[in-house]
Amino acid sequence: MGNDNAPRLDPALEAGNRRRLAGYAAKHFGWSVDGKVATVTLNRPERKNPLTFDSYAELRDLFGQLRYATDVQAVVVTGEGGNFCSGGDVHEIIGPLVRLSAPELLMFTRMTGDLVKAMRACPQPIVAAVDGVCAGAGAIVAMSSDLRLGTARSKTAFLFNRVGLAGCDMGACAILPRIIGQGRASELLYTGRSMSGEEGERWGFFNRLCEPDAVLAEARKLAADVAAGPTFANGITKTMLHQEWAMTLEQAIEAEAQAQAICMLTEDFKRAYHAFVAKQKPVFEGN
Amino acid sequence: MGNDNAPRLDPALEAGNRRRLAGYAAKHFGWSVDGKVATVTLNRPERKNPLTFDSYAELRDLFGQLRYATDVQAVVVTGEGGNFCSGGDVHEIIGPLVRLSAPELLMFTRMTGDLVKAMRACPQPIVAAVDGVCAGAGAIVAMSSDLRLGTARSKTAFLFNRVGLAGCDMGACAILPRIIGQGRASELLYTGRSMSGEEGERWGFFNRLCEPDAVLAEARKLAADVAAGPTFANGITKTMLHQEWAMTLEQAIEAEAQAQAICMLTEDFKRAYHAFVAKQKPVFEGN
Amino acid sequence: MGNDNAPRLDPALEAGNRRRLAGYAAKHFGWSVDGKVATVTLNRPERKNPLTFDSYAELRDLFGQLRYATDVQAVVVTGEGGNFCSGGDVHEIIGPLVRLSAPELLMFTRMTGDLVKAMRACPQPIVAAVDGVCAGAGAIVAMSSDLRLGTARSKTAFLFNRVGLAGCDMGACAILPRIIGQGRASELLYTGRSMSGEEGERWGFFNRLCEPDAVLAEARKLAADVAAGPTFANGITKTMLHQEWAMTLEQAIEAEAQAQAICMLTEDFKRAYHAFVAKQKPVFEGN
Repeated sequence: MGNDNAPRLDPALEAGNRRRLAGYAAKHFGWSVDGKVATVTLNRPERKNPLTFDSYAELRDLFGQLRYATDVQAVVVTGEGGNFCSGGDVHEIIGPLVRLSAPELLMFTRMTGDLVKAMRACPQPIVAAVDGVCAGAGAIVAMSSDLRLGTARSKTAFLFNRVGLAGCDMGACAILPRIIGQGRASELLYTGRSMSGEEGERWGFFNRLCEPDAVLAEARKLAADVAAGPTFANGITKTMLHQEWAMTLEQAIEAEAQAQAICMLTEDFKRAYHAFVAKQKPVFEGN
Repeated sequence: MGNDNAPRLDPALEAGNRRRLAGYAAKHFGWSVDGKVATVTLNRPERKNPLTFDSYAELRDLFGQLRYATDVQAVVVTGEGGNFCSGGDVHEIIGPLVRLSAPELLMFTRMTGDLVKAMRACPQPIVAAVDGVCAGAGAIVAMSSDLRLGTARSKTAFLFNRVGLAGCDMGACAILPRIIGQGRASELLYTGRSMSGEEGERWGFFNRLCEPDAVLAEARKLAADVAAGPTFANGITKTMLHQEWAMTLEQAIEAEAQAQAICMLTEDFKRAYHAFVAKQKPVFEGN
Repeated sequence: MGNDNAPRLDPALEAGNRRRLAGYAAKHFGWSVDGKVATVTLNRPERKNPLTFDSYAELRDLFGQLRYATDVQAVVVTGEGGNFCSGGDVHEIIGPLVRLSAPELLMFTRMTGDLVKAMRACPQPIVAAVDGVCAGAGAIVAMSSDLRLGTARSKTAFLFNRVGLAGCDMGACAILPRIIGQGRASELLYTGRSMSGEEGERWGFFNRLCEPDAVLAEARKLAADVAAGPTFANGITKTMLHQEWAMTLEQAIEAEAQAQAICMLTEDFKRAYHAFVAKQKPVFEGN
């Protein structure tokens, strides 16, 4: 079985096709890595940071690569200039879309859906730092993150029906009701109206509100705190948080028994125990 | 294939067995259509608008017909005389039920469940205007609507256990937890206690509270606003809002990619784009 | 078919292998029955009532027996000395776990999961009375109850990631989001931070907050009120509240039609009707 003359790779490096992303050179948004925390910055502030075909695709690919990254343990997503993201650019996305055929449109909606799938499939918890406008696909990116910090002046609008579309965009009809409840999600999706920051906090969309000039720093702090935890286990938490949506309770409990048993075999579990016994704070290493 | 001598029907009219409901003559409740918005008014105010075998069946059939209606784009459900609905009439429903056999009882519970199925299956968003008593099957009708406006004095009670029954009536154990959360739903279903208007707003059952003499007008305004939107897309939003309940996240995202691609082929999507470019407000036509 | 000489048992007693639990002698926690309400008291207050291998197993078995109990109609779970439960004992559980093999660990995680399954599978609604520390497996026991009364000073922490583990413990990633929403559950599971009593009430984890010296009495009162209701129907409510999680809406409505038709055949349903007609309060008997 196999060619004995084939080059031997270090299995510890090769397993899982692992890679480092600190040096990634993003083309269509900002990308920086500080410690274990990466920050994606949507950076066309003069247009309130819209998405384009190119930035959609690059985000999808980057979150896909994060699945195998060894150096990034949490991700912050934010926007420049006091706004998060204005969604799909009217001229660069909606204009072309109105001229596409059915198969071409499905290719587009699958691409945008693939961004959400990639955000959910990578093991790194994602923290959205939301100020100002957070609309359309921007609201979807916030919704598809794991944690969300907002500001009182943030305006989050799932405004698809304002542009003649349905609220079922990129998973919104499945995800949003689980965050804020079916009745509130229905209102936002049927009317396209903005959710205020205060509503977002009260309804559970935002984990908390911050001052506009502090929201990014607090998101990075939260991401760094999470990344200082047992990162392998965090990734399992993330996987299970959506893996169990359509399971029965009994299936979910069995799935968690298996997943948690894997985590109990990690060194981080041992580290925590020994630190506790020694009355010290554990230092996790993610393995 | 087929008889060449068969009468030819206009396929644009015939497709989907479409019909108009503005002239529908309701027997067991009030029915009116103003513009694109229909209003169902439960109208036995001297008994706080209970449901009977007849009104259950007529409501089920009417919401079934709305599935194919071309002239109604949103529905308001309300009650006369300061109450929404007191539920199944004790004398006209519960009395007969205690004498029925198992197969007859299942026929009844399937009929009531079919009302909820019909309310969810029609494409029109349903807005409940809830004042005063909203109990038993009345609470279910409110719960099964898409949006709910209440009043501070409204009392919503899933009081099935008060009459010796389980809380699992017409979908309550599946739907109510998704609106207000599992813990709060459990309390209402185990105890049968009333949820106050203030609780209903805080828990996400009511989208907002209105003054009693304004709640119907505000519900009609909300319904009219929704009906002025892209109504085909609204119907897709409604379908997906419950279609995706038991899907995995990945299935839901694929389902939304397909559903949204259909919406991107509508004229309403083009209308929105061209209106935006012309700096005008789009006028949607539902196709 | 069968041996005609086999001893004949009273089928009314034998059916379902029914048993009485008022006289149960608990070894690893307190157990008392007052009227129809049993109270489980975690009672190692000097350690804030941790769970051990023994108490886990006994709780699992006891809740398993409650499935067939005829004399207990509701259960209160509480802790002694101002705390609810500090979770799995560090020395008696976590210490041994770090030395176990994969199959042994899965046996443990399945046992803890089986406790949650047993709590959900018994027909008695469970009311948790939570004061002080409610951490790890203690938080899971509260979460897996049907109703929860807390105190302002209660601190509920799903602190698995603090000990190097994932948040997916005993069903938490499936159950907690349905109680408090996906975003808030994510924060608690990723960070392990405490949820305050006030947050717990606002987010729907606690049905209400009580004074510390009143929370147990109020939990018993709530349990007694529920147990005074139609207890067979209550058990059906409980079953359906989690049975329908992974059903489509249409499946759930059919399941409820069947379940409610069974309840309409009970004497309790007739009792409620006749009491109503006689303008009396019904006295339910659970059959």
